[in-house]
Amino acid sequence: MDKLFIALLVFVPLAIGAAFAGVSSVAVFFLAALAIVPLAKYIGQSTEELATRTTPAVGALLSASFGNATELIIGIFALKAGLIEVVKAAITGSIICNLLLVLGFAMFVGGLPREKQTFNRTGILAQSSTLFLATIALVVPAIFSETAGETAGVAVEGLSVLVSLVLICMYGANLFFSLYTHKHLYLEEAGKFLPRWSIARAVATLLIATLAVAWVSEILVHSIEPLVAQLGWSQLFVGVIFVAIVGNAAEHLSAVLVARKDRMDLALQISIGSATQIVLIVAPLLVILGAFLGQPMNLVFNTFELVAMGLAVLIVNVIVQDGESNWLEGLQLLAAYAIMAIAFFLHP
Amino acid sequence: MDKLFIALLVFVPLAIGAAFAGVSSVAVFFLAALAIVPLAKYIGQSTEELATRTTPAVGALLSASFGNATELIIGIFALKAGLIEVVKAAITGSIICNLLLVLGFAMFVGGLPREKQTFNRTGILAQSSTLFLATIALVVPAIFSETAGETAGVAVEGLSVLVSLVLICMYGANLFFSLYTHKHLYLEEAGKFLPRWSIARAVATLLIATLAVAWVSEILVHSIEPLVAQLGWSQLFVGVIFVAIVGNAAEHLSAVLVARKDRMDLALQISIGSATQIVLIVAPLLVILGAFLGQPMNLVFNTFELVAMGLAVLIVNVIVQDGESNWLEGLQLLAAYAIMAIAFFLHP
Amino acid sequence: MDKLFIALLVFVPLAIGAAFAGVSSVAVFFLAALAIVPLAKYIGQSTEELATRTTPAVGALLSASFGNATELIIGIFALKAGLIEVVKAAITGSIICNLLLVLGFAMFVGGLPREKQTFNRTGILAQSSTLFLATIALVVPAIFSETAGETAGVAVEGLSVLVSLVLICMYGANLFFSLYTHKHLYLEEAGKFLPRWSIARAVATLLIATLAVAWVSEILVHSIEPLVAQLGWSQLFVGVIFVAIVGNAAEHLSAVLVARKDRMDLALQISIGSATQIVLIVAPLLVILGAFLGQPMNLVFNTFELVAMGLAVLIVNVIVQDGESNWLEGLQLLAAYAIMAIAFFLHP
Repeated sequence: MDKLFIALLVFVPLAIGAAFAGVSSVAVFFLAALAIVPLAKYIGQSTEELATRTTPAVGALLSASFGNATELIIGIFALKAGLIEVVKAAITGSIICNLLLVLGFAMFVGGLPREKQTFNRTGILAQSSTLFLATIALVVPAIFSETAGETAGVAVEGLSVLVSLVLICMYGANLFFSLYTHKHLYLEEAGKFLPRWSIARAVATLLIATLAVAWVSEILVHSIEPLVAQLGWSQLFVGVIFVAIVGNAAEHLSAVLVARKDRMDLALQISIGSATQIVLIVAPLLVILGAFLGQPMNLVFNTFELVAMGLAVLIVNVIVQDGESNWLEGLQLLAAYAIMAIAFFLHP
Repeated sequence: MDKLFIALLVFVPLAIGAAFAGVSSVAVFFLAALAIVPLAKYIGQSTEELATRTTPAVGALLSASFGNATELIIGIFALKAGLIEVVKAAITGSIICNLLLVLGFAMFVGGLPREKQTFNRTGILAQSSTLFLATIALVVPAIFSETAGETAGVAVEGLSVLVSLVLICMYGANLFFSLYTHKHLYLEEAGKFLPRWSIARAVATLLIATLAVAWVSEILVHSIEPLVAQLGWSQLFVGVIFVAIVGNAAEHLSAVLVARKDRMDLALQISIGSATQIVLIVAPLLVILGAFLGQPMNLVFNTFELVAMGLAVLIVNVIVQDGESNWLEGLQLLAAYAIMAIAFFLHP
Repeated sequence: MDKLFIALLVFVPLAIGAAFAGVSSVAVFFLAALAIVPLAKYIGQSTEELATRTTPAVGALLSASFGNATELIIGIFALKAGLIEVVKAAITGSIICNLLLVLGFAMFVGGLPREKQTFNRTGILAQSSTLFLATIALVVPAIFSETAGETAGVAVEGLSVLVSLVLICMYGANLFFSLYTHKHLYLEEAGKFLPRWSIARAVATLLIATLAVAWVSEILVHSIEPLVAQLGWSQLFVGVIFVAIVGNAAEHLSAVLVARKDRMDLALQISIGSATQIVLIVAPLLVILGAFLGQPMNLVFNTFELVAMGLAVLIVNVIVQDGESNWLEGLQLLAAYAIMAIAFFLHP
């Protein structure tokens, strides 16, 4: 598996070279997308290596901070380029992708050779309620904006910043819950990981991979507008489907691999956990950074995005509520993803 | 009970005669509606008789194919007559009727003489997730159509056909799940049914009843437009309430009877199972047939229908999620049905 | 605790005096609001005292009738003053307040010193399905009104009255369920309360407190319009946040106190029970009284109110569905309340 990622690194110079050579934006976009996959993986791995060398609390904080570094970096460059619709679409896409595509694939692949797979209901339902809170945080500004009429622009910005602050506080509360008051629910995985890299190697890898992700993200983001013009796709589709998959590809692979080994608790933690972190910390930070960057981004998602996210949250809740999964449930999540992806593709 | 259905057969010649005699459309509609009830019952019974004579797999396939024959036949004639709103309303109505009226009545009647009735949560929750997938399949095209604007006509047709294909694949996956990989969850009922009819009698009954349903359905469908004009009812109301009840009447009776005998698993399988089959196979087939019949039908239901279906799916999920039911829960489903039926009746 | 409420009684003469003295409406509003808190508490307490002196059935009927007396009285005065938006906002607010603020605070305070608190899933899920029925009863008229167009005014009134009658019947069914067929589920609490007051004292307290609530409610209601004009707040915000908290303050305190003592079943019964009673009996009675008072009120809530109520019902269902709670889940409910309150405040 490691060899695959090393091989994929070849796309980093290819993407940078293609951008400088001024070749077709379509080629640049897909080269940059492929280049981000291994870089995101090395950010994740070096973070984990560093995390095992510190106290559990500092380690968890590190993982939490760098776990979504790639999504955040892509988001910042898209914000700076004024592609606010792409940023929102990528947030929507990350949630749908983690809840339906990643979790569905994990349940399908993990469920095929077995009658059923079981997991700890209590832990999962705690994450499920976080998902519903996240849904509330995204639905309320949209309804507010729709019912408040045209004069509500300033109020919507204010509401978005305040809701973002509430979400960041809840992110802190979630950390406090998992690191202090209820850490026994999460300790199981901690002991299993042995460091393989020296601290120097881990720090260097983290720095280099983060810088490279930043460079390639900027290339990716700048190829979106010409790509959209050339292929006739919508920014919505590119953001929801491609940008979302790119930022999460490495995590997807691990979720599927651990599901195959019947470690469904970890697979659920990766997929549902990523989705909640996108809403609790990535989206709020982008709203607040947007205000500083002079590219104010509010939390008003369009109806289609909201309905897609809301339905994804609902069906996942129904599927996990009995603490069991099987291949058919995985396939149902994949079917839901397929329906949404087709609709986002056809949407004018 | 059999005698009741034999007696009801008298409405078949009455409906046909009334249609030829050219009497009031109101009379023709209600005679035809009453005539369909015993015919649908005999289609179901002859299918079951044939199913017991074959291998379980073929039998299940037979039941699955003919289980919704009546709804499908009514739908085809309504499509051919261009009554697309009636077809959609009948689909909506079948789902609401099965989830709220049939299941509610079964839980109420079954729960009255007992403190509570229990059922297998795992099996029911699997169906519940199918219901949520079905909801997604109906909500996404509606939101698509609403947000895509006026130029989206062609895209909506394409989306409807693609979503229909996804649903038909999921129907196949459901069959594969219940016939191969997880058949032990469903075998319990198989051994209890002993064939009473000869194969010849079963085949003959199936053929004659199907032809008669087709004939009477055509009469029913053609009486709808004059009926609507005469009584001032909306096509929506006629489709959601009457057409839906007519096509499912026989199944309703069996769900209530088995609930009374405390066989709630079977009652839930009949009611929730019928609702899911309407979305997974009847609606998609009608969309695809509509394209061939030159009466293109999309999957865009109106807001009122969608909200009614979505709320029905949600409340049923809440009521079944603990694996127990009582008379009050049954009455709650009936109250939900009453509220919706009143609203559909009053809707202009 | 009793001393606090006795001290708060001083606001009754203050509010009445301020109203006569014609001081600022803002002052009158907040004095009246504070005055209602102890009065509502004494209505509740005298009802409980009387209830223990009669048969359980009569007692339960008494509690049920006077349990929401304060909300009903405020509602009637607001209706008479033509403040129909305030009445609806107060209904919305009572539901959100009970489900998110009260329950959230109870789970947070009760959960802080413990790993988790458990409660009886069966009883709570029965209430949860009532909440979903209530949601259906409020969503259907709104969708009806939105899709029926402008000519639907009369039909909406008719639908509201019919839905109200269905809800009142379900209120009766709920009483029958808890007093007759399933009273064993609810008996636990009955034996724990010993009467401390004489019947005469209880009756006198009930009468005086009810009259005083009526007087102060009228003052409160009449200060709303000038208050709104003066502070620039919306009637929606005043109704959803302030009027709702005032009418339920005493119950809030008891829910939090019993949660602290780890009696979560009772805390859930108070909070979720109050929310369901608002929809099953207070709102329908106000609709029917409105018709008699010449101030017809329909059940059409605005989109923002409906979405807020629907999301509150959903997140509570997710949080209670495993029969356990902890401080983080409580905080999530409080965060959801905060997001909604901010949005209602900023809403123009």
